[in-house]
Amino acid sequence: MTTDYKGLLETIADEVRPLMGQGQVANYIPALARVDPDNFAMALRTIGGDEFAVGPADTRFSIQSISKVFTLTLAMRMVGEALWQRVGRNPSGSAFNSLVQLEYEYGVPRNPFINAGALVVTDSVASHTADPAGLILGFIRHLADQDDLDFDLEVAKSEQENGHRNIALAYFMKSYGNIYNDVEHMLSVYFRQCSIAMSCRELARAFGYLANNGVDARTGESMLSTAETRRVNSLMQSCGMYEAVGEFAYRVGLPGKSGVGGGIVAVVPRRMSICVWSPELDPAGNSLAGVRALELFTSCTGMSIF
Amino acid sequence: MTTDYKGLLETIADEVRPLMGQGQVANYIPALARVDPDNFAMALRTIGGDEFAVGPADTRFSIQSISKVFTLTLAMRMVGEALWQRVGRNPSGSAFNSLVQLEYEYGVPRNPFINAGALVVTDSVASHTADPAGLILGFIRHLADQDDLDFDLEVAKSEQENGHRNIALAYFMKSYGNIYNDVEHMLSVYFRQCSIAMSCRELARAFGYLANNGVDARTGESMLSTAETRRVNSLMQSCGMYEAVGEFAYRVGLPGKSGVGGGIVAVVPRRMSICVWSPELDPAGNSLAGVRALELFTSCTGMSIF
Amino acid sequence: MTTDYKGLLETIADEVRPLMGQGQVANYIPALARVDPDNFAMALRTIGGDEFAVGPADTRFSIQSISKVFTLTLAMRMVGEALWQRVGRNPSGSAFNSLVQLEYEYGVPRNPFINAGALVVTDSVASHTADPAGLILGFIRHLADQDDLDFDLEVAKSEQENGHRNIALAYFMKSYGNIYNDVEHMLSVYFRQCSIAMSCRELARAFGYLANNGVDARTGESMLSTAETRRVNSLMQSCGMYEAVGEFAYRVGLPGKSGVGGGIVAVVPRRMSICVWSPELDPAGNSLAGVRALELFTSCTGMSIF
Amino acid sequence: MTTDYKGLLETIADEVRPLMGQGQVANYIPALARVDPDNFAMALRTIGGDEFAVGPADTRFSIQSISKVFTLTLAMRMVGEALWQRVGRNPSGSAFNSLVQLEYEYGVPRNPFINAGALVVTDSVASHTADPAGLILGFIRHLADQDDLDFDLEVAKSEQENGHRNIALAYFMKSYGNIYNDVEHMLSVYFRQCSIAMSCRELARAFGYLANNGVDARTGESMLSTAETRRVNSLMQSCGMYEAVGEFAYRVGLPGKSGVGGGIVAVVPRRMSICVWSPELDPAGNSLAGVRALELFTSCTGMSIF
Repeated sequence: MTTDYKGLLETIADEVRPLMGQGQVANYIPALARVDPDNFAMALRTIGGDEFAVGPADTRFSIQSISKVFTLTLAMRMVGEALWQRVGRNPSGSAFNSLVQLEYEYGVPRNPFINAGALVVTDSVASHTADPAGLILGFIRHLADQDDLDFDLEVAKSEQENGHRNIALAYFMKSYGNIYNDVEHMLSVYFRQCSIAMSCRELARAFGYLANNGVDARTGESMLSTAETRRVNSLMQSCGMYEAVGEFAYRVGLPGKSGVGGGIVAVVPRRMSICVWSPELDPAGNSLAGVRALELFTSCTGMSIF
Repeated sequence: MTTDYKGLLETIADEVRPLMGQGQVANYIPALARVDPDNFAMALRTIGGDEFAVGPADTRFSIQSISKVFTLTLAMRMVGEALWQRVGRNPSGSAFNSLVQLEYEYGVPRNPFINAGALVVTDSVASHTADPAGLILGFIRHLADQDDLDFDLEVAKSEQENGHRNIALAYFMKSYGNIYNDVEHMLSVYFRQCSIAMSCRELARAFGYLANNGVDARTGESMLSTAETRRVNSLMQSCGMYEAVGEFAYRVGLPGKSGVGGGIVAVVPRRMSICVWSPELDPAGNSLAGVRALELFTSCTGMSIF
Repeated sequence: MTTDYKGLLETIADEVRPLMGQGQVANYIPALARVDPDNFAMALRTIGGDEFAVGPADTRFSIQSISKVFTLTLAMRMVGEALWQRVGRNPSGSAFNSLVQLEYEYGVPRNPFINAGALVVTDSVASHTADPAGLILGFIRHLADQDDLDFDLEVAKSEQENGHRNIALAYFMKSYGNIYNDVEHMLSVYFRQCSIAMSCRELARAFGYLANNGVDARTGESMLSTAETRRVNSLMQSCGMYEAVGEFAYRVGLPGKSGVGGGIVAVVPRRMSICVWSPELDPAGNSLAGVRALELFTSCTGMSIF
Repeated sequence: MTTDYKGLLETIADEVRPLMGQGQVANYIPALARVDPDNFAMALRTIGGDEFAVGPADTRFSIQSISKVFTLTLAMRMVGEALWQRVGRNPSGSAFNSLVQLEYEYGVPRNPFINAGALVVTDSVASHTADPAGLILGFIRHLADQDDLDFDLEVAKSEQENGHRNIALAYFMKSYGNIYNDVEHMLSVYFRQCSIAMSCRELARAFGYLANNGVDARTGESMLSTAETRRVNSLMQSCGMYEAVGEFAYRVGLPGKSGVGGGIVAVVPRRMSICVWSPELDPAGNSLAGVRALELFTSCTGMSIF
């Protein structure tokens, strides 16, 4: 049976159209605030390599926290199990309260998707190369099969100037000995990794290995073992959507990771990867139309993991 | 294709045999400590109604925290959405620290599977009937299709005598107005619900609706909506295994709920429910052989949700 | 030079009169809410034995938390240094947050004047006698030289019925092994000790030893050593006025302990003890006119310890 | 009656001599670790202007946290009551846990003597002048009547390089909007203020106004009002000695402020100011011989405020 994904995506796009104007574009830095709020795009790619899209699925946007999945994968490849001595792997949520937790757990963040954890992950990558930002960018270019992906240095600079809390987290973990590199250097890598711009189509492609037991179906290359892939997916499932993980599990029921740029990438294990983008956010910081689109998707296809 | 589940279960039973003696039976109350530690049983039931088992799968044991799933289901049926004003539904983990969290969130527990949350759920059931313990028992008997299930009053009494922390939690939430009934009354219901004894076969059967979008396949009766079922499964997936949710997701990759009696029930959405029992616990309080058995199961069948 | 304390107290009484009606009588239990809000009385007693008073200084009121000072003294006499293994003695305030602190410090309260600490102190007294409430009452009668002091059992009963948070604290500490006696028994002692009714004159007299290096000037009996007296006074100074210790130090500058019945007892080391009573409380739970009266007192006499 | 303070100080110096070698010099930065551990000096100055000293009372050492008292005084003079909207003034201890507290109280530190609070105080001074470090130094030179006091820039530089936690605190409060100036700039002021070197005699003199209701007895100049002086003294009394405020109140019973350089300054209100210096610290970070010396002092003179 051939599913008419193209038709489904178009139906979804129509359905979410009325949501435009009901959310709020991230505006803590001008570079993000400038985006056209009305955008809606969605792309999916099956592990067999078929791609379907709707809307401006080739328009790039700031991936922001979605980058944490790539850096985590890279760090797992480079550092292996040792990574988990510096960052927790219990999917215990987008964290009731990260700094309190950090203090009581002596500078070891709960998981790699809260900011403190992502900083440690970036730091661990930074320990293995002179140009960690370049390495991360190269890895993402490779996954997306797209050589012209790049940082948005204006975004990175703005993030750095407004990132007092991230700077505080980094120095705080440094005081516990859990940041090995120079804090400024590590942060400059982190802010650049978040600033990378990608399109829905590129992100769906780049996430393909997580839908395929860790194997990049295009090349046959194994990015992560099956067990490690399960780890990343389960961490996304319970920590990938900020404070709304519960709502997302209930309404969508897929592992996913969102960014304040309005992107969400979701994984249907052993089937496909999906990316949706719409810049207006709900109060939890997730794309308003994006969550709704994914809800419609699993509702129509029955593809929830639950 | 017919999967040889019978053979698989026997292989698993052989594989986990060497683990006997490596865990520790719960010994905080004598009634639990008396169990024969060497037991290992496993039962699965497909949504089509086929049952397969190995070991003493008809021997009953204390279900303990597994009961929280039944009471939650009952409360969702009785109270509906209003339940979630009194208990969180964000699958944010087996809780970094429940009492701290309770204090900062004014007596509203994070989720229904931490003890504070389970107490609120029991309290909400208790508000709707003169005999809440009887109602809960009746519901479980109905789900398991077994009329002779019963409380173990010796276990319940021991739990109550040693349950200072649960008593503290209850009075603390009462001070915030989040326990409506008399605390002693509510606790006596709670300790009885945890003391119910069931076998692997009975538990696998009783969990069938969670593998079947909320519908009891035997009777066609809808216990929960599809969305509500997803909610329960996702909560189990991220809060069902105490501090080991991350490890369980990584190694097993199924929604599951364990109890200190050594039982674990897991759900393969739209396929089957599985119960395993072995009294010796690992340091996190989950059945040592049980977790390993489920790991072998998903490893051999590829049935992880991730 | 003879100070005209009588005239000073009358001046103070006139000065605070306009404050009547601006505070709020404690109303969480009816027995406390019934008091006439307009009362204002003040009594002081020098270590030489001179007494001065103004207003209804012989009218008894519910001493509430003021009782914690007596029970602490009794416990220090009975248990000695061992007491401080069960309750902290760092005057670190009316506690940013007692339950959080309790959890992280494994059931050991920060100091004997927060409720958790006072419960431990009462529990330690209860371990040494079959009738701890009687012992506490007897000790206070002895200090006040007044044999007809008694519990107000209606107040005690109301407190118990509304004391969910205190019950929670007690069971919580019990779960850490820091309450030795039966919780219900200990609490019934605690609620009775708080319900004792005393007058300003009686309280000023009963606190005399704290103004006299631990010696009861009437009898020459040593209640506490000089160092222990310093300990109690410094604990009162930094934990005796709920959240308002800072304001009290700034405005008054004396060690003091207040109760929600509207009483405040203050100590001028090596000079005198003072009790003031006015039932209307400020938002921090301290007597509104009482704090002002003490401020006028130290302002006029220069007797602040700072 | 003339007290033989000179003889008393000599007796005290003899008494504490055996403690040499039992503590540990602060060694987190080399510049502090280099000091000769065997030093012991003590100086007192009455409000009448008499000075007594023993040991190398003219040898300068790093004042470290003692500087917080000066900066607080300066900020109270410059900012007035508005200061207390940015930093708490409840003497609630050397802080159960400053970062937790900061997070729950939205970036407002509990008091001006914990590090977070001292950073805010320095920041508030920095908002009123182009050269805040110079202003602070000038103020201290004026109080000590000593024009050659200066920063130890090697110490300041080392502190900055090792001050990750302070940097974290500063950025964290910045993220709440409670640091107004550039963080690097503010920190450079803070680390310099802590590095100032002073002798016992100079510190006793410089603290004279706190023993004299806010008035510098040498010049008649009012540094703080009587009420503000009481505020500072009470804050020192309950937050001035790190985790050992309780022990210090019990053993010494005077408002005091210590620094990791081994200095402690104490105030006997309306009588005298005292400075003691001995570099070896006890586990709480206070001078081991210094605390003992002050204990002997109040024990012999009966000058405890309690």
